[in-house]
Amino acid sequence: MHPKIIPVVMCEGAGIGLWPVSRDSMPKQFIPLFGRDSAFQRTAKLLSDATVFDRLIVIASAEHRFTVADQLQVIGVKAEIVVEPVCRGSAAAVAIAVELGLARDGAALVGVFAADHVVQDGRLFVETCARAAVVAAQDGIVTIGIPPAYPATRYGYIRPGSEITDGAHRVEAFVEASDAVQAARYLTDGYLWNSGNLIFNAATMRAELETFEADVMASAGEAVAKGGRDLGFLTLEPLAFAEVPKVSITAIMERTQKASVIAGQFGWSDVGCWSAVWELSEKGANGNVVEGRGYVFDGANNLLRSEDALLAVVGVDDIAVIATRDSILVVPKAMAGKVTDVVALLTANGEPEAGSHREIHRPWGKYLSIDLDTRHQVKRITVKPGGVLSLQKHYHRAEHWVVVRGTAEVTRDDETIIVHENESIYLPIGCVHRMANPGKIPLDIIEVQVGSYLGEDDIIRIEDIYKRC
Amino acid sequence: MHPKIIPVVMCEGAGIGLWPVSRDSMPKQFIPLFGRDSAFQRTAKLLSDATVFDRLIVIASAEHRFTVADQLQVIGVKAEIVVEPVCRGSAAAVAIAVELGLARDGAALVGVFAADHVVQDGRLFVETCARAAVVAAQDGIVTIGIPPAYPATRYGYIRPGSEITDGAHRVEAFVEASDAVQAARYLTDGYLWNSGNLIFNAATMRAELETFEADVMASAGEAVAKGGRDLGFLTLEPLAFAEVPKVSITAIMERTQKASVIAGQFGWSDVGCWSAVWELSEKGANGNVVEGRGYVFDGANNLLRSEDALLAVVGVDDIAVIATRDSILVVPKAMAGKVTDVVALLTANGEPEAGSHREIHRPWGKYLSIDLDTRHQVKRITVKPGGVLSLQKHYHRAEHWVVVRGTAEVTRDDETIIVHENESIYLPIGCVHRMANPGKIPLDIIEVQVGSYLGEDDIIRIEDIYKRC
Repeated sequence: MHPKIIPVVMCEGAGIGLWPVSRDSMPKQFIPLFGRDSAFQRTAKLLSDATVFDRLIVIASAEHRFTVADQLQVIGVKAEIVVEPVCRGSAAAVAIAVELGLARDGAALVGVFAADHVVQDGRLFVETCARAAVVAAQDGIVTIGIPPAYPATRYGYIRPGSEITDGAHRVEAFVEASDAVQAARYLTDGYLWNSGNLIFNAATMRAELETFEADVMASAGEAVAKGGRDLGFLTLEPLAFAEVPKVSITAIMERTQKASVIAGQFGWSDVGCWSAVWELSEKGANGNVVEGRGYVFDGANNLLRSEDALLAVVGVDDIAVIATRDSILVVPKAMAGKVTDVVALLTANGEPEAGSHREIHRPWGKYLSIDLDTRHQVKRITVKPGGVLSLQKHYHRAEHWVVVRGTAEVTRDDETIIVHENESIYLPIGCVHRMANPGKIPLDIIEVQVGSYLGEDDIIRIEDIYKRC
Repeated sequence: MHPKIIPVVMCEGAGIGLWPVSRDSMPKQFIPLFGRDSAFQRTAKLLSDATVFDRLIVIASAEHRFTVADQLQVIGVKAEIVVEPVCRGSAAAVAIAVELGLARDGAALVGVFAADHVVQDGRLFVETCARAAVVAAQDGIVTIGIPPAYPATRYGYIRPGSEITDGAHRVEAFVEASDAVQAARYLTDGYLWNSGNLIFNAATMRAELETFEADVMASAGEAVAKGGRDLGFLTLEPLAFAEVPKVSITAIMERTQKASVIAGQFGWSDVGCWSAVWELSEKGANGNVVEGRGYVFDGANNLLRSEDALLAVVGVDDIAVIATRDSILVVPKAMAGKVTDVVALLTANGEPEAGSHREIHRPWGKYLSIDLDTRHQVKRITVKPGGVLSLQKHYHRAEHWVVVRGTAEVTRDDETIIVHENESIYLPIGCVHRMANPGKIPLDIIEVQVGSYLGEDDIIRIEDIYKRC
């Protein structure tokens, strides 16, 4: 019997390579790219195998903590959600994992996994983790290397050394491929991709962190010790956590003598760009992949994805056409890696679509701006059962709410009013108001804002059950 | 002094070659493709040159009569608008032009012009018409031929014969190019494209119609004689007009002995597909043309056009990407001619975007559906100053109207209520209601419909100032 692994999922990545679907406001790990589950949900499900894993820990940013909670609830997976007040890099996340692991068990084995990776054979993935755990229990730190599929230059490579046991090899070096020629040589020489997924003895990792990045371990430890529980989240103490130096865990892995590597044969992708999505998707006629309302006429091996609009692609091959409600990308699959540069340019040009979605997720539900002009804005607001918006007021806008589904409980200054389906309520400028869904089904509201300034920063929060004031 | 031409613009074409921008609900002649004016408006302006042309006549379908009136008003051109109750082809339109011309003057010269053609040198176009008028006054019927720019197979060709006078030649034959080889031979042999624009002596044309298509002339004449004036339109009598055989004017031109041709050197296009739009547009950097919010990264000679969404096109050349609020087309410019086939397939598949726009123009203004679900729909409605919607009721929906700009006069059963900016009104299922804009600025309303059925056919019109009941 090998010991169970305490699995820790790191949700840090932004993944703008899948723009316009993934953006800072909704990173790729939370988006369903294949079927119904997001990469995060697929990962969480795999790490729920109770024969190999202990109870799940998820490390998320403050911005995405409610998305994490929602997505876990949908798949019925329980987890401890740890909130990072700011992003401090992967070494910090590993240090937190070490602390939380040791708090459960002094001999704990911990596994840290990326939220945005996709594996094809889940059973083999779990088996590989179990094998890695046996090695980690004996020998400290095991990284899962991936047999390279092609001479990639955007991944790091691991040079495996002598075999320790059962397919685990000592790590001789972590290296980068400076170009495709070097990468091709690495392939020939049996190097592995560094997937960044680690399984380790927590005490060993703590010792290595203390040796090589003592400040990371000390400040992260203090942030955990002083952290507090709130709304079901474990929030790290912000001041201590802000002190953690921003270091990648690779910096430790390059220096430690305790690292070994096991090859993961389960089929792996970090889904870094749209060509990877096409490769991993089930193909339709002529190799085309169509998500949403799309037609290909006279074309092969295309990826079409549309949230809303009807998409007609004529006479092109090997192209990705990705349409969200507010943005459209057209790129040959072979150039899909350039999308990160494109997003950087859009950001530099101040295009809001570079980073923000029109549909915004909030702890109480979500809203979508459906019409915007100089003097009015219309939003479709969905409030989860039990959801409560902050008690708020505005200096520049009045609001009209029409309930189109469900029942709203509206606070307006001193009144509390139940607003039913097909009823409306008016909220004059300056009134203190709040909306809640006391019912059992989602509440859908059409909100019409009228005023001289309609920015989100004219929401003056007075009280908030989600502690966002 | 030559006699003035009575110019008649025919607005029949649908022009789905420019889908998704042009559709049955808004044909290409009414859409601004270059600058601010539509092709119809450009044509109407050219035909307003009072030194050459008499007062304009426009022949339009019932569906688009208000669009015609609106677009003329915007450019300040006065015209007689003739409404065809049904579409009966170009011979019918010419017969109507003959009748209206002769009603003005027994020796009238009439010019019939397509609404969706674009000419590059407007002054030369007018001069050419003036020259054609002199010939027509002497010799009957003059067609304006276009020196071919390339061996097109989708236009008819004219074989010019001996010169009559001043660059006008007898027409030897109207022919079709069966393939590109034949078309190339036509180019070498000095044939001209048949642009379908004619200038003729009305009495001569009437005689030719009576000789070759007597039923067309008789029924069209009766439809004009029995037609009525209403709301400023001349509407043809529907029963008589429905009797007109559907014939192309080319069928008369092929048989008459009175036809001559003048070459139009003014630069002509029927803007049949997106590659023509690119060719006629002013190019930006690397030959790219961008209308709306669009970026090209690493690509040349593309046409980007977006109504609303941000468009990012990466690493492609010579492609058209056209995005409306509800549809997106991606097609290499060289294959843009295929778009008509694509629209036919979308139509066969029952896709509503094949024929209808999300923004719908009405005599009183326009509306745009901004949100639609199973139990609710949200529309943004704009009512022109003085505009009045029909008095109506619904069996399946209640409506909430929020005025976001202007002032509404609302009739609700027995009440008349003035609704100001930032006020709302509720219209229960079954109530008889009407909205009007009594003010001086456009009225903008957000309409929230709630109900079990939201189709347009649940608008029961009781009274309509635009006679649409």
